[in-house]
Amino acid sequence: MKRFFSVNDITDLHTTIKEAIALKKAPQQNSHLGKGKTIGLVFLNSSLRTRLSTQKAAHNLGLYTILLNAAQEAWTWEYEDGAIMNGNTVEHVKDAANVLSQYCDVIGIRCFAGLTNKEDDVSEKIYQLFEKHAKVPVVSLESATLHPLQSLADCITIEENLPKNKKPKVVLTWAPHIKPIPQAVGNSFAQWMNASDYEFVITHPEGYELDTKFTQDATIEYNQQKAIENADFVYVKNWSSFKEYGKMIPVEEDWLLTNEKLKASNNAKIMHCLPVRRNVEISDEVIDSENSLVYQQAYNRTFAAQIVLQKILENNE
Amino acid sequence: MKRFFSVNDITDLHTTIKEAIALKKAPQQNSHLGKGKTIGLVFLNSSLRTRLSTQKAAHNLGLYTILLNAAQEAWTWEYEDGAIMNGNTVEHVKDAANVLSQYCDVIGIRCFAGLTNKEDDVSEKIYQLFEKHAKVPVVSLESATLHPLQSLADCITIEENLPKNKKPKVVLTWAPHIKPIPQAVGNSFAQWMNASDYEFVITHPEGYELDTKFTQDATIEYNQQKAIENADFVYVKNWSSFKEYGKMIPVEEDWLLTNEKLKASNNAKIMHCLPVRRNVEISDEVIDSENSLVYQQAYNRTFAAQIVLQKILENNE
Amino acid sequence: MKRFFSVNDITDLHTTIKEAIALKKAPQQNSHLGKGKTIGLVFLNSSLRTRLSTQKAAHNLGLYTILLNAAQEAWTWEYEDGAIMNGNTVEHVKDAANVLSQYCDVIGIRCFAGLTNKEDDVSEKIYQLFEKHAKVPVVSLESATLHPLQSLADCITIEENLPKNKKPKVVLTWAPHIKPIPQAVGNSFAQWMNASDYEFVITHPEGYELDTKFTQDATIEYNQQKAIENADFVYVKNWSSFKEYGKMIPVEEDWLLTNEKLKASNNAKIMHCLPVRRNVEISDEVIDSENSLVYQQAYNRTFAAQIVLQKILENNE
Repeated sequence: MKRFFSVNDITDLHTTIKEAIALKKAPQQNSHLGKGKTIGLVFLNSSLRTRLSTQKAAHNLGLYTILLNAAQEAWTWEYEDGAIMNGNTVEHVKDAANVLSQYCDVIGIRCFAGLTNKEDDVSEKIYQLFEKHAKVPVVSLESATLHPLQSLADCITIEENLPKNKKPKVVLTWAPHIKPIPQAVGNSFAQWMNASDYEFVITHPEGYELDTKFTQDATIEYNQQKAIENADFVYVKNWSSFKEYGKMIPVEEDWLLTNEKLKASNNAKIMHCLPVRRNVEISDEVIDSENSLVYQQAYNRTFAAQIVLQKILENNE
Repeated sequence: MKRFFSVNDITDLHTTIKEAIALKKAPQQNSHLGKGKTIGLVFLNSSLRTRLSTQKAAHNLGLYTILLNAAQEAWTWEYEDGAIMNGNTVEHVKDAANVLSQYCDVIGIRCFAGLTNKEDDVSEKIYQLFEKHAKVPVVSLESATLHPLQSLADCITIEENLPKNKKPKVVLTWAPHIKPIPQAVGNSFAQWMNASDYEFVITHPEGYELDTKFTQDATIEYNQQKAIENADFVYVKNWSSFKEYGKMIPVEEDWLLTNEKLKASNNAKIMHCLPVRRNVEISDEVIDSENSLVYQQAYNRTFAAQIVLQKILENNE
Repeated sequence: MKRFFSVNDITDLHTTIKEAIALKKAPQQNSHLGKGKTIGLVFLNSSLRTRLSTQKAAHNLGLYTILLNAAQEAWTWEYEDGAIMNGNTVEHVKDAANVLSQYCDVIGIRCFAGLTNKEDDVSEKIYQLFEKHAKVPVVSLESATLHPLQSLADCITIEENLPKNKKPKVVLTWAPHIKPIPQAVGNSFAQWMNASDYEFVITHPEGYELDTKFTQDATIEYNQQKAIENADFVYVKNWSSFKEYGKMIPVEEDWLLTNEKLKASNNAKIMHCLPVRRNVEISDEVIDSENSLVYQQAYNRTFAAQIVLQKILENNE
């Protein structure tokens, strides 16, 4: 693997999932791969799970990790080509990417959607510029439109909880929130589900359609209760409108997921990428139930990151 | 050891002190214990000594350390059970503690007293919630009411400086400050002194009585000069009022410790946990004297942390 | 080597440059030197290259690295001797330096010029106080007047790009900026060039003369175009006025470096320490040309730091 930005960078998804699960038995079995090599983890935004799980994965592989909270510890980046830098930006992303490549054998970067300029976010301006100018493999720690390490961990978690003798029905349901949130987790989960052999349904209020580039021919069901019927997995996540970009369109129905609504499911397992605003996106009774997989998802983040980094290191050997 | 929150988690204090001192001769003698294991150090507040000494101790034990400035690098935590999280908090402490446990074999956490809600501080709300939801051993890096790693380092330092042929007199004296400070260091030192076989006296202005849960039957002497008489160790520390919780009660006398006052002591050694506001809490002449143990206390923080982490790792083997 | 603050701490510059270059072939050849030892990297200011390259160098040497963003993660320092600390400073630099020495075998510190008090900056007040109270070797990660690790990397880069059969002409040219910038990089480059056997010319507008303590008898040429004639290396850097300390004196001519201006050079290589404000200090066409050495300079930062730390570790063996 030479980069990791989306599901398209995975050659064989099912094999990769199995390989990730196999790492759990002996997490440091490949600690020779990273020996003498360095990974840089660059954060333009907050992170808990991604930050810790990728560090852990890197350490398991024998990599040395250098962390950088770019804006706070170093400098604010400029993204415009040819910019006359007489404003608030201190270093051009092209210089930062080139310089980081002088110290790192692989670089992970987190750069959320700004939700103000649709074109910039859709084109993955920041991520693409960084990757273009980097001289080493780049791994997405969540970009404007996708969160692939989360989705891979989600696929691992579903694989570990498959219903017996049945193709699972997986439902991605929109959830309420108090402020506009990027579509990255929703987009990404849709993309990875489309690459899997599951029945996949997305449910959300009208106006909250995700980018069809990622949802493709997934079933869209505007009635949450109907979508949940017979579901084996219900993935809960808020996102802001893609059409009215970055806006919160008023929603009349109550989309908060409750046990009452889940009665129609096939005793569905509950998933969320975390952090979650409890009792806004999802009720305590649901997320704290024995059907909740949210901490298992968090645990699997380590092995998602590790199998990806392993494939990148193997490619560079 | 399964946790480290107070002196009550130490089985045999004197033996533990001796074991910590023995580590100094070969600090990495037990570097196999942490092999393949990870410690997470989570800071909700500033730290210099605790941060560095615990990292050093962890490294000496072969542990891999992951640091997190929780609010700045990740998310602001919610502490209310059942909260409808539609405000400024982004992740519930129960989720954070559970998730951190997915990546760490032991977790240290620093969470100061807020000094606004006495009940929350006295009940150690934040620490207790974190520990309750963590799935791995938790170590206090200072909580609302106690600072046990500091106190253990203080005990080590006293042991290394015992007067000959004499049970030492140890005096904890209140000191002036410019703003309200938690009682944690004072409480904790009192608790650990009560567990030691020393003569122990606390001196402070009226109204600055510490929580009797920690001071127990220690001698309280409101006259600082009288308290210092024949003292072998004088531990200097400010704290805000416990009774008028978190307030600074006006004090008429000058409580700044000077050499003049110390003349009545038994050539007392001077202790302070640092950071110290020089010439407010303690005069330069005292802290810079040859009787000052403050840097030795700082040095001993490493071995206090190391013996605690060692006992936790041994318990989990 | 017992400290690293300026070129004066290097015994034999040319040999040191050659040793640094030799490290590139096997960066971890001396990883035994740092075994069991700890380096503390303390930042009072932002850093990208210094932060990452010094971490990388330390890791190559087998050192364990502890990072500290001092003001944000720990406390604000007091610098006045005898200060009554009843203001915003929480810990005296003398205590911080002493305490850090309890955990580290070597300490790197970054402390920029404040540009408000000339006497403080010129006397290197912060750096000198820190070094005075530290009990272990201290390495400058850029101080008020000098940036020696940058200059050593610059010397390595020039050595790797020497013209054949010719003593090189090296020009340091002032560049425009939008705000007052310390003189440290300019001072330091001048100091190291004066220690080298090159033809060295400094060009800047009148009023931007650097401290003669560092420029010594270097040629000063106020006409940028004339200075560039036949140059083999052009080092571009802004600095604020030393005479009118920390001020930006209005400049009428256009000092932005362009290819047009460089036509008079001997196909000069272009250098800059980064970060650079593109099209303010230097035009894109120049910094992105094949003659630009800026990323090679960044790369060489690792080996500059590594040879310095190696010499310090060897001295302490």
